[in-house]
Formats: sequence, C-alpha cells, structure tokens
Amino acid sequence: MPDAVLTEAASEMLDWHGSGMSVMEMSHRGKEFGSIYEEAQADLRALLAVPPNFEILFMQGGGLAENAIVPLNLSQAGPVDFVMTGSWSQKSFKEAGQFCQARLAATSESSGFTSLPPPGSWQLGSDSRYVHVCTNETIHGVEFHALPDLQALGSKAPLVIDFSSHVASRSVDWSKVGLAFGGAQKNLGPAGLTLVVVRQDLLGHAMQHCPSAFNYQRVAENGSMYNTPPTYAIYIAGLVFKWIKAQEENGHTGVAALEQRNKQKAQLLYDCIDRSQLYENRVDVTSRSRMNVPFFLRDASRNEAFLAGANARGLLQLKGHKSVGGMRASIYNAMPLQGVQALVAYMQEFETTKA
Amino acid sequence: MPDAVLTEAASEMLDWHGSGMSVMEMSHRGKEFGSIYEEAQADLRALLAVPPNFEILFMQGGGLAENAIVPLNLSQAGPVDFVMTGSWSQKSFKEAGQFCQARLAATSESSGFTSLPPPGSWQLGSDSRYVHVCTNETIHGVEFHALPDLQALGSKAPLVIDFSSHVASRSVDWSKVGLAFGGAQKNLGPAGLTLVVVRQDLLGHAMQHCPSAFNYQRVAENGSMYNTPPTYAIYIAGLVFKWIKAQEENGHTGVAALEQRNKQKAQLLYDCIDRSQLYENRVDVTSRSRMNVPFFLRDASRNEAFLAGANARGLLQLKGHKSVGGMRASIYNAMPLQGVQALVAYMQEFETTKA
Repeated sequence: MPDAVLTEAASEMLDWHGSGMSVMEMSHRGKEFGSIYEEAQADLRALLAVPPNFEILFMQGGGLAENAIVPLNLSQAGPVDFVMTGSWSQKSFKEAGQFCQARLAATSESSGFTSLPPPGSWQLGSDSRYVHVCTNETIHGVEFHALPDLQALGSKAPLVIDFSSHVASRSVDWSKVGLAFGGAQKNLGPAGLTLVVVRQDLLGHAMQHCPSAFNYQRVAENGSMYNTPPTYAIYIAGLVFKWIKAQEENGHTGVAALEQRNKQKAQLLYDCIDRSQLYENRVDVTSRSRMNVPFFLRDASRNEAFLAGANARGLLQLKGHKSVGGMRASIYNAMPLQGVQALVAYMQEFETTKA
Repeated sequence: MPDAVLTEAASEMLDWHGSGMSVMEMSHRGKEFGSIYEEAQADLRALLAVPPNFEILFMQGGGLAENAIVPLNLSQAGPVDFVMTGSWSQKSFKEAGQFCQARLAATSESSGFTSLPPPGSWQLGSDSRYVHVCTNETIHGVEFHALPDLQALGSKAPLVIDFSSHVASRSVDWSKVGLAFGGAQKNLGPAGLTLVVVRQDLLGHAMQHCPSAFNYQRVAENGSMYNTPPTYAIYIAGLVFKWIKAQEENGHTGVAALEQRNKQKAQLLYDCIDRSQLYENRVDVTSRSRMNVPFFLRDASRNEAFLAGANARGLLQLKGHKSVGGMRASIYNAMPLQGVQALVAYMQEFETTKA
C-alpha cells in the first residue's frame, strides 16, 4: 500500500473533507459516500481504459467467491473451458464443477506449471459458455503477458480472466475480454473488495441458484449497492486510484507508468537470478510473472540463513508458498524499484558470503 | 463508530504495534494479523457469551448475502418457516424462495408492521428445517426484546435470527438460537464484514449449489480464512470489541452496560414522542425497537422544516426510509446518551416553535 495513501487515510479518519464523519460512519446512500463511490468508479474506468459497454462492479468475497459467482452468472450450467496454469486456475476449475460442465481445455501441470500452454493447443469446444484463464498465477509465477485472442482461435466464447494479481500493473486489451475479476488486495486496495468488470451483453443470464447479492445484473442495476458495499475499502481503493493516476515514468503516466516500472523491477530481479550460480527460476522465460518471482537456492540447506538475513534487513515475506517451496518475491505496484534493488543487493551479497 | 476507535485506527495506520506495516498491508496468514484475528474472535466470544459449541465466522456479503447463504447451508432445499415483521424479514423470505420451500409462518403486514405476531400464533411446520426471524427491523422499528422459545412452541427446528441491527446492543440467549447472522456496520464495525454465529451441529449440510467461500463448514474449518478475509474490517471490529469491553454503566460492563444505556436512550426518546402533541410513534409499545425509532410529525407540512433545523444542529440522517416516510432516529451503540438528549431537546423546542 503506498505510504501516501495510508497517510491521507489516517489524516481523514475522524473527519472526511470537513463532513464531521469518518468514511466508516457514512451511510452508503448518502451524498458524501456517493461522491467517493462515483470518483472511484470514474478513476478506475479511466485508469484501466474500460470501454463504456462494460460495467464496473464493486463486490465482496474475493477471487475464491468469484470462482462460484462467475459460473452462476455466465455458464447457464453448460460447458465451460478452463486453461489450467497453476494453483488459482486449478481452484477455479474445481469450484466451477459444482455449477457447470467444467472442461479442461489445456494444462501445464506436467511441467509443474512452469510454462503456459500455447493458445493454439487449447481444446476449445464450440459450445463453450466461456473460457477461463488466470492471467497471473501468484504461486507458480507464470503470467500471460498478452491475452489470448479467442476469436482468432475460432472460438466465439467470451474470455473470462482472473486478473486479481496483475490488475493495474499493465494495460488490459478489453477487445479480447468478456469479464475480468479480481480481489483488490494485491494492487488496488485492502482485502474485502472484489472488482468485476463485465461486458453488458453477458448480464442477465444468471442461474436460479445465484444469490441476488452476487447476481451481476442486479449488482449493476443497483450501482454496486444492492447490498451494503464495503464502503471503507472502496474509499481506500479510490485513494490508490488517485495515487496511480499521479504516477509518472519515462513520459508515461498512470497504469502505463506502473507497467514501465514493473517491467524494470522484474527485469532487475530475473537478471540477478539468471546471472547467479546460487539462485534459480524455473519458469519459461516468455511466461515469467512480473508480479511474483519464485526462485530456489540450488543449495537448499542455505534457505533458512537466506530468510533470516533477509528478515534482518526488513526484506519480509520471501518464503515461497508451501506447495512449491523455495522463495518468492512479490513485487506488486506498491513495491518501489528501491525495494527490488535492496533485495538484489542482499541476494548478491548472500551468494558471495561463505555458506 | 466510537471516536476512541477511530483515533486509535488513525494513529496505527502506517505502523501497527511497531510491525512497520499497516494492517492493510499484512498477509492474512502472517502472525501479526493472526494475533488481531484471534483477539477479535476471543473478545467477541466473551462479549456475546457465545458458548463453545458455536462457531464464530467472519464472512463477507452482509445480511442480504446471508439471505441466500443461510438456506444454501441449512435448508437442504426443504421447508423453512419465516416470520415476517418488516422489510428485512420480507427480503429474507423472498430470497430464500430461490433455494428452499419458504413458508410464511406469521406476518404482521396487516398492521403495517407496527406490531409483532405473538409466537403462540405462528404456524410452524413439524418438518421445518429452520425458523427465520429478524429480531430487529430497522425500517419499521420493531424489535423482539425476548427471543422466541421454539421448543416451548412445539418445534424442533433451529431458530435463525438476523441480528444485524441489534448485535452487541443486548445479551443473546443462545439456548434458543441455532444461527445468528448480521452485517457488522450497525454496531460492530465497518461495512464489508459479516458475522455468523452457528451451532456446530448445523454445519455440514450445505447444498451442492453453495459456493465454497460461503459454505459455513468450510469457513469454520479454515478459521474464516478459506478466502482472504476482510482484514482491515476485522481489525476495526476488534477495536470496537475492546471499546465495548471497557464500557461501564450502573455497575454493568461490556454488552450489559450498553444494554442499560440503550434502554435509557430509547426510553428518553419514546417518552418525548409519547408526551408530545406533534410527534407520533405507531409501533406497539411492547415491540418498540431500542435501535431504530421511527416517528411522524402529525403535521406533515412541517417535515422539511424539522429536518432543516435538525441538520443545522448536526442532528443528521433523521429522514425516515422512503418506504415508510416520516422520521427515523437510529440510536445504535455508538450514539451517546448526550446525542439522544440533544435530539430530544431539539424536538421539544421545535414543537413549541410556531409553525
């Protein structure tokens, strides 16, 4: 979370803009929160260049809830094609099976999810209600740097992307997307806010068993206020949106600036790993994530020492996910270049230190 | 929201307890957030005297989402009896019909929801999966001051209460309850956190169409961390719990202290209304809510002047819900006695002022 956002939130905690209220105390139907909500919607639409024929929904439940909510809204219990590229798409596939005919169109499981199956190899059914892809896998560190063009692959199905972990780190080509969803907690704001961006023609097909609070059409018709929205989380996300708008890098602004910076950060870290004798990243170079960089020490007996030294320098949360092991550096938008430079400096120093 | 809570939250925004992190930046699986979560759970269990055979779940989606989630978890698509006493139970009844055989056991609609149907008159089926009651209706201002004893009524079904709008304002007799749910935004914390307290024997009966993120058993097994929980909202709620623990009134502490104070606040306001020639509360005196006090000006032409004068004194959000009209004073836990005294003083002054 950018410090500027936290500082502003702290200063406004007891009195937002002279209203005499904390944002936490506002009625979600009052004019004060209304203005916060409208600005957040407009800023996000501008930042992500969301076209007018897409709705931006602020929901609850996170990506894991969306694993059920998407098929409840879009599948009509029919067949859906899944591309499995790591833990998150695996969970989505498994959950969807409760609601629709979930089919595996492609998987990179045999490579240990260190590569992405080429779109040309995907087995897409002509009757597919939609195609699900997780465009960045946080645990395995693989990322689709370009979205697949389903039309070019001969499919008429809409593409659903889980962009939880790269939203606002790069631009989105909406011409290829039917629906994008993501928890806010990586790049957009605090946990407890879920973003859904959905093309309007996909609304109105929810199954009978879809809870009204998670029916996209109902949420859209009520401006994300069918049920009480997570007001404070929306406010914080709105502050993050303003922070993103103000970012500049090499003549770019907003998300494009962050994209530049994220490329630079990732390059720095992957270069360090690739040039080293100690560290190793096993992901196919064309599919490496710019958000999550898993790596291993070839001498695993030094893992504990590596983590202890990192912690001592304030380089936190570097332990890899238990399902994969090793290390993982998550370098989301809020991580400055200096943070990655500090990590690289430590990694180089650790490598040259006697074991 | 108590000022003390907001002040503490503001002061810890950038650095929680010397961790160098904002609560918003913590991993929900890290030890820092773990301690926040455990304390919030333990404090709430103590405050509400929740017995050990009940799980406390921190969820998302609010009361409106629970209107679907409860039948998805408890109904097994079978019959459920609803007691309709106002807008909220009406919504619950309507939503449940998508998932189970929702039956109307009793309704006070003919009175305009100004009274509560006596439990002895409820038509409870012997095959009912559960009985749903909204124990405080915010719009109509009716409250069950004592929970119905279903066993005494000859029913073996568990009682489900929607206590969104009175949770922590009074004690709960858990011997009469199977499940209680509520959004946090009235008395417990910010919007975006939903509390579910459920007896353990009711877990494990979810329907196939229940999204995993809303499957109570799965949520319970994962300590409310199956999906990423609304971490910051839980933290704020935890601060509110500590504030409640510290409350004292007439030798009582915690929720009992608030209950004393809430009775006093409500009495003051109802007395003012009942003694007045201008104001009128139409709710049966035995069923009047201590949280939400709807009232009307017998001379409706003075409504606008009443609201304008109130706003000028910082007495905000007094306009009644559009479905009912008139005025409504919501006097939740965080409203101090002085706030009600100020309202009463204004009401008396307004009444004696020439129209």
